[in-house]
Amino acid sequence: MTRIYFEDAEIGTTRKAGPYLVSKEEIIQFAKQYDPIPRHIDEEAAARSIFGGLTASSAHTFAVFISLTPKLQPRPLHVLAGMGWDELRLPNPVRPGDELSLEATILEKLESKSKPDRGIVRNQIRLCNQRNEIALQCIGTILVARRPDAKASA
Amino acid sequence: MTRIYFEDAEIGTTRKAGPYLVSKEEIIQFAKQYDPIPRHIDEEAAARSIFGGLTASSAHTFAVFISLTPKLQPRPLHVLAGMGWDELRLPNPVRPGDELSLEATILEKLESKSKPDRGIVRNQIRLCNQRNEIALQCIGTILVARRPDAKASA
Repeated sequence: MTRIYFEDAEIGTTRKAGPYLVSKEEIIQFAKQYDPIPRHIDEEAAARSIFGGLTASSAHTFAVFISLTPKLQPRPLHVLAGMGWDELRLPNPVRPGDELSLEATILEKLESKSKPDRGIVRNQIRLCNQRNEIALQCIGTILVARRPDAKASA
Repeated sequence: MTRIYFEDAEIGTTRKAGPYLVSKEEIIQFAKQYDPIPRHIDEEAAARSIFGGLTASSAHTFAVFISLTPKLQPRPLHVLAGMGWDELRLPNPVRPGDELSLEATILEKLESKSKPDRGIVRNQIRLCNQRNEIALQCIGTILVARRPDAKASA
């Protein structure tokens, strides 16, 4: 699949990916390895938590967001690296059976002054569940490759 | 292990956890599930990436940070939920064999006006490798439980 180079990324365009079905088994499996606290791995303890039931680890929700990024349609960006995330919020918990969809809207593009083979792109990120409630939102900043021909002529 | 309630969290104190050894196998296993791009799962492709070798997915580095949080010494906070992360940056990649250590310094405490059983704590987070290079930094905002007796008297 062809990917979008920096030159062709248009500010204001929105790309979408998903849905990603989050199972109870995956919530527990992820949390056992990286966030093994009772409210992520034990249904009875989770029922007594402030969420009233099993919820995914924040790290798991972030991993689902990252996993959907290369599936953004139409055509993902040609990402060289993630640089950072700002204003990362998880306003609603992810529960077993939730179906998460990703939306990424290009906010800003910056050319790299020192490295002509890459540029910086900032995206507004929203990961929503099947009721269109936001599970995760942030502003993501990524390094995106420039078109090889553009680099040669630079 | 007893955990620190909101009332006892002192601004300016630093707690530490780790190290966490990141193996090549774990990098590849995590990335195959959540970030299966060549530079995280294929050593030859990784050698051609801008990092010149295998590196952990950003989501993996974030998961290691979360996994160390309840191990902070002396005594972790009594966390009810993660609320958000600001200025999240990954200035240096995580490579196979890296040993990551977490430092969390309490920056700020805010009482919840509507819910007397909890408060908000903001921490400066730094996850460093064995050469003391920062792999991940951010400001984390968490909900922390108040002491049950404090709640009763509120």
